Amino acid sequence: MAKPLALTSGEPAGIGPDITIKAWLRRSELKLPAFYLLGDRDFLAHRAKALGLSVRLADVRAEEAEAAFANALPVVATGQAATAAPGQPDGTSADAAMASIRQAVADVIAGRASAVVTNPIAKSVLYRAGFRHPGHTEFLAELAATGAHTPQPVMMLWSPALVVVPVTIHLALRDAIARLSSELIVSTVRIVVADLKARFGLAHPRLAVSGLNPHAGEDGSLGTEDLTIVAPAVETLRGEGIDIRGPLPADTMFHDAARKTYDCAICMYHDQALIPVKTLAFDEAVNVTLGLPFIRTSPDHGTAFDIAGTGKADPSSLIAALRLAARIAATQGA
Amino acid sequence: MAKPLALTSGEPAGIGPDITIKAWLRRSELKLPAFYLLGDRDFLAHRAKALGLSVRLADVRAEEAEAAFANALPVVATGQAATAAPGQPDGTSADAAMASIRQAVADVIAGRASAVVTNPIAKSVLYRAGFRHPGHTEFLAELAATGAHTPQPVMMLWSPALVVVPVTIHLALRDAIARLSSELIVSTVRIVVADLKARFGLAHPRLAVSGLNPHAGEDGSLGTEDLTIVAPAVETLRGEGIDIRGPLPADTMFHDAARKTYDCAICMYHDQALIPVKTLAFDEAVNVTLGLPFIRTSPDHGTAFDIAGTGKADPSSLIAALRLAARIAATQGA
Repeated sequence: MAKPLALTSGEPAGIGPDITIKAWLRRSELKLPAFYLLGDRDFLAHRAKALGLSVRLADVRAEEAEAAFANALPVVATGQAATAAPGQPDGTSADAAMASIRQAVADVIAGRASAVVTNPIAKSVLYRAGFRHPGHTEFLAELAATGAHTPQPVMMLWSPALVVVPVTIHLALRDAIARLSSELIVSTVRIVVADLKARFGLAHPRLAVSGLNPHAGEDGSLGTEDLTIVAPAVETLRGEGIDIRGPLPADTMFHDAARKTYDCAICMYHDQALIPVKTLAFDEAVNVTLGLPFIRTSPDHGTAFDIAGTGKADPSSLIAALRLAARIAATQGA
Repeated sequence: MAKPLALTSGEPAGIGPDITIKAWLRRSELKLPAFYLLGDRDFLAHRAKALGLSVRLADVRAEEAEAAFANALPVVATGQAATAAPGQPDGTSADAAMASIRQAVADVIAGRASAVVTNPIAKSVLYRAGFRHPGHTEFLAELAATGAHTPQPVMMLWSPALVVVPVTIHLALRDAIARLSSELIVSTVRIVVADLKARFGLAHPRLAVSGLNPHAGEDGSLGTEDLTIVAPAVETLRGEGIDIRGPLPADTMFHDAARKTYDCAICMYHDQALIPVKTLAFDEAVNVTLGLPFIRTSPDHGTAFDIAGTGKADPSSLIAALRLAARIAATQGA
């Protein structure tokens, strides 16, 4: 029997509880993989009532979640109760969100879960509670650290139409340019290639690398970074036997015919990667973290405080994240 | 009777002649608006032969082009003969390309043509011949100058799915950030609004403005330019009664539902604007120059030296450019 997915609660005041309940209610119709929520059963029951949704909840241990999933939404207690009302994070929010993430990582490392799927957190809430990581992904890398080694997490946006990896992520655009280096491109691509092989089952992944500047710098007349930073990185990677092309003009990389020529686009900064994937696949894009010793996926949206508890939240991206996590787990035999 | 469109030759060694002939051959099937080519009849006849295409050419004056169009491709002589072979620009290329552009502008200003449609030029070829403008568009603005006043040309990428205007264009990304100012955004948007009203027939154009930084800077935590440069410009423009929103996170501006909320997206730099429009409408995107005293459209691709004279060039974007120019001319009564 396949192991279940460990789903974190995310920010209790956000839409995480809403979309978790909605996804579970569609489990049969959509043939969803089994998952359990790491959180607080009473909190979830309260939110279900607020949403007017009838959902059976089962207090279980992770080992019992798979069997319980068909008849009840399995909840594994974290011991941290939350009290926040929809849209209004309170003093219990940060501890509840972090306990859920910690326990999910412990479960997947101990082999009780096949992968981690995370609901959205609110960084500002966590910062006020002393959280010191730039974001969710770095916290996961820290939890996955062994001894002095902290893995380099790599963010991938996966969709049926397009798969992208931004080399720099949540930085001001001018800082992203400053941060870009051949070393960063090389280390990122090595992780992408290893995970596309081991976790996505691609024996010979084909990569396309965008230029930083318009027209990939047009031979240096529109910026030199594509000649001095991007091209040498591509050369190094090609020397390692990787099927990789670039730097390519970013504006002509993402139309139908161009997308057929590669499996994953490596982009230099956030918007260069996220504009095309969200333009093509807004509701289906899944955030996947590569480079960790376990699989982690998450929906590609935030806490949406403005619609939490209203019933308006759309579980599509969470459903896509659950499905992709299960598919990867099956591919790599987790 | 509607006036014809003045079509420039572009770089003779590029695909301009190929797509011009191919477009004319489909004039009846596609009900194309009448156009005439400004160039060299013998050169065009030679290229048609190389392509194995049977095309009747008519040496005409601009005033005779409309009547000739149904039965022959009207060619108005520029007096500059070209000799360049496909893919191999030579000493005649630059003069031929520039004479064609000059005469097209003279024709539209004199009222002999309703609009200018330009075939692609090769800037490197023109630079070697002493051309001193950053590009095609700036040359057109110079030709349109009256006295000491040179108009500010604004580049728009138009497609049925999405219309975008990049505020900065052909600059290295770090230079684009440095060039960005509230004044530039304000002057650009004023031109866009005026032309959307006068030339596209939109009584109340709705604009959406992207942020420079990821997540539009997330309240300053991912870069300050969205607070200090973009937001004040939007505020100024809103104060002028313009229907405008922003700065918005660029990655969530271009999916189906988001695009329905505005008529034109104002973007901060080249790839931010061109990635979504070319992802959605690669063969249909038309480059339109706003802010000039006449209409100018062009296909959204380059000279494609590698396929010139081979028959592989696709006239779709030129056809879209001809159609859009005719539509705008009809709207503004040119």
